[in-house]
Amino acid sequence: MTTAAPPATSYDKLCAHLRETALLHATESTLAWDQETMMPRKGSAMRADQLAQLATMVHARRTSNELADLLSECEHDDALTSDPRASANLREVRRELDRESRLPAELVTEISRTSALGMEAWKEARAKQDFSLFEPWLQKTFDLARRKAECLKTDDHPELYDALMDGFEPGMTSARTEEVFAPLREFTVNLLKDVRGRAQVDATPAIIELPIDKQIDFTTKVLEAIGYDFDAGRMDPSTHPFCEGLGPGDTRITNRYRADGWTDALSSGMHEGGHALYEQGLPKADFFGQPIASAISLGIHESQSRLWENQVGRSRPFWGWALEQAKQVFGAGTLGGVSAEALYKAANMIEPNFIRVESDELTYNLHIMLRFDFERALIDERLKVGDLPGEWNARIKNDLGLDVPNDAKGCLQDIHWSMGAVGYFATYTFGNIYAAQLWATMGEALPTRDEQMVRGEFGQILAWLRTNVHELGMQHRAEDLCKNICGEGMNPQPLMDHLQAKVDAVYG
Amino acid sequence: MTTAAPPATSYDKLCAHLRETALLHATESTLAWDQETMMPRKGSAMRADQLAQLATMVHARRTSNELADLLSECEHDDALTSDPRASANLREVRRELDRESRLPAELVTEISRTSALGMEAWKEARAKQDFSLFEPWLQKTFDLARRKAECLKTDDHPELYDALMDGFEPGMTSARTEEVFAPLREFTVNLLKDVRGRAQVDATPAIIELPIDKQIDFTTKVLEAIGYDFDAGRMDPSTHPFCEGLGPGDTRITNRYRADGWTDALSSGMHEGGHALYEQGLPKADFFGQPIASAISLGIHESQSRLWENQVGRSRPFWGWALEQAKQVFGAGTLGGVSAEALYKAANMIEPNFIRVESDELTYNLHIMLRFDFERALIDERLKVGDLPGEWNARIKNDLGLDVPNDAKGCLQDIHWSMGAVGYFATYTFGNIYAAQLWATMGEALPTRDEQMVRGEFGQILAWLRTNVHELGMQHRAEDLCKNICGEGMNPQPLMDHLQAKVDAVYG
Repeated sequence: MTTAAPPATSYDKLCAHLRETALLHATESTLAWDQETMMPRKGSAMRADQLAQLATMVHARRTSNELADLLSECEHDDALTSDPRASANLREVRRELDRESRLPAELVTEISRTSALGMEAWKEARAKQDFSLFEPWLQKTFDLARRKAECLKTDDHPELYDALMDGFEPGMTSARTEEVFAPLREFTVNLLKDVRGRAQVDATPAIIELPIDKQIDFTTKVLEAIGYDFDAGRMDPSTHPFCEGLGPGDTRITNRYRADGWTDALSSGMHEGGHALYEQGLPKADFFGQPIASAISLGIHESQSRLWENQVGRSRPFWGWALEQAKQVFGAGTLGGVSAEALYKAANMIEPNFIRVESDELTYNLHIMLRFDFERALIDERLKVGDLPGEWNARIKNDLGLDVPNDAKGCLQDIHWSMGAVGYFATYTFGNIYAAQLWATMGEALPTRDEQMVRGEFGQILAWLRTNVHELGMQHRAEDLCKNICGEGMNPQPLMDHLQAKVDAVYG
Repeated sequence: MTTAAPPATSYDKLCAHLRETALLHATESTLAWDQETMMPRKGSAMRADQLAQLATMVHARRTSNELADLLSECEHDDALTSDPRASANLREVRRELDRESRLPAELVTEISRTSALGMEAWKEARAKQDFSLFEPWLQKTFDLARRKAECLKTDDHPELYDALMDGFEPGMTSARTEEVFAPLREFTVNLLKDVRGRAQVDATPAIIELPIDKQIDFTTKVLEAIGYDFDAGRMDPSTHPFCEGLGPGDTRITNRYRADGWTDALSSGMHEGGHALYEQGLPKADFFGQPIASAISLGIHESQSRLWENQVGRSRPFWGWALEQAKQVFGAGTLGGVSAEALYKAANMIEPNFIRVESDELTYNLHIMLRFDFERALIDERLKVGDLPGEWNARIKNDLGLDVPNDAKGCLQDIHWSMGAVGYFATYTFGNIYAAQLWATMGEALPTRDEQMVRGEFGQILAWLRTNVHELGMQHRAEDLCKNICGEGMNPQPLMDHLQAKVDAVYG
């Protein structure tokens, strides 16, 4: 015999509404994944139309009167506002509704169209190493971003640039970012000088040429060991590695391979795997579509990818295990003469690079700081778009001692601005900082962590992240989560300690 | 200087509405393709929800007041109703609107839910060879199909079963089907008896074991030669081969492989390739979403797949070319001792099989006639669901002389009923009949067709199909198209001539 279900409450209806929107957004993500991995070349025009159609429907749902009414009803219910999960949901839905509603539909459409066309112009400009082809689009992108910021600006975020950052890292400001970046920058510049005075490292073991199918097998083996569930995901080749958490039971990653890049493939695989472990660990089975089953911020997301890439994947104990696995996959002949110590050093070589995504753990953050400073200056119109290439090259010369040979290796290297993503870059360094803080705190709870890694056991590391980070979804803001776990907000000191110790170990 | 566009007419708005619906349906198809080829196992629950959401939105658009109003306005415009393309569009949109509107939303939802659950039950029943696990679902499927038919039944289609057929093959009736099937059945039974009295064919060349990656290369090479555009498509492995025409620039096929099945892989590849050539040839670049850029019927669709699979791919001239290609791909060593004549005979061997999709060109149609007869009897309640296995096995014994060993090789072999597709099967034989009619008529226009095939030239064959079939979309109903091209409606005689000639050539 079945009992009639009780009538649905406003909160039930709100959650159902959020779930329907999330399903539609998951469809959008599935199409985006397909576009990067599977879609035939001639399908691109229709795909742009499909994505625009879905984006419009998602935006309409996220700003609908139905949603606003349900939310208001829930906000007057004390039982909900005193419940930790429900109140976090209400807080974040309110935040998104208010933000999205302040954007005129016309502006949303124009930003979407400009980013579709701007990306094509950027691809061409980068291929031809000709900034002038992208310059008008970059001008338009920053003009639109400025208009967007003017719509979003509130008393909480009076600075234009902060209103943009807030979209990627809720609650973050540029003042707070400067405060955190300043000591890290000084430390990095000094340590880089220091490294240059020390004996150099032999890069050879990291760039031995190995077959790509075996590189895929090796990366797969490591990802399985760290806990990525391939029954709820898959890994495909793509030009730029990425992770898409489509929804419950489906979190996909991509990776890229070069014959002489087996350790790079492992690093980017573990990076995307780290993002994927976060997505797979969010409580989507029960709360799909609700903020409490969503990632907190890009900074926290990046902390998960960086932790697995750097704190685990570039550590000495890890290579004690991983080299043996590599020998099994690639055959002892190819890696027979390589020691774990030599590989550890090679995988941690510090060498300034024009390209952000090819940079080492230390100099990477200088790339981010450059972008943070320039974006802010462009939004505030202290820097003219036309002056960007010259300023960029001067800063690279100053920070890294390199002469940028052309704009493709300079200010045209990143896809972000062409996509209209302004205010995003700083979250990469937030991720590095949070990763080091989490790793240091975790170390106190797991004193035998190094020995576990040498044995290829990563279950306790993952379990700690699951409990402390993944399972909470957006219950807290990023810095509050960090405070709850580590006893303080964002602090670059553990990252500096980590980098100093690494340099001392690798460069003696 | 730009000139202001003239205000959109009702017809412009109608076409824009159809295009938006088609885009949403293309998204549904992309997700369906992904489900069969890429989706990780644990993603299935969310995928079912995504597909149900999209199906609901598509149904709502197809029965919306907005569509109905636009259509009515256009139907009163003489300029439109006298234009061949516009009038075909109005005719078919009216037809679909009327059909879909007669189905209560509640019934649509129940059919969708039953088919999702029924398919799982069918998979289990087939795996366990236990009809009783599927019986209640089959009962429900036919009860729902009967309810659907009662809603759809009109004066044009007073027989319940006809209302269902009409959904797959517009305008077709069971009376007309019987008329066409009867002589084909008699001919087939007699020819099968005749073949059994002749010397047998050596199957060996068709089942040489060859590496699957090379089978994929070979099938790809043949598909490129017949004109499938891989820049507007792709081919992946799947359990059941299929073709999805997602939209302009994106028509994907799948195929399956066995070590000893290289000629089977070629046949199913050419079959799906034939479907894909039709989809790629429809004028979607200009008219996407409109009936004039859509396939006429499943029968005509199947005629395109069968023509490339059988009339081309199982012909003697084709093998004169294809064997040389195969030797290049597989290496002369593996196929060195094989002659084109021997391969042609092996690929055309006639041997009754329990399984429809593994059947030869001749006995295949007996499988279809069985299903047509049984479906009709089930809808009319002349046959009880519980009696199906016994009746099925008796008919297979009678038609093919085989003793069905279990229901997995009998009435549980096809996926169609589990998906709620009742009234579909006959279109497979319509396809065989139309393919033979088109091929015969084309032969008069292309007298050197055989010589072209021996040289691996298929461009004139494709161009003829493009002009006569593909580019017209749904401008005509299936039998009218056939009349326009071949001078008469559906007629099984050319198929019988083709089969007789084949048997004489292969069995001497």
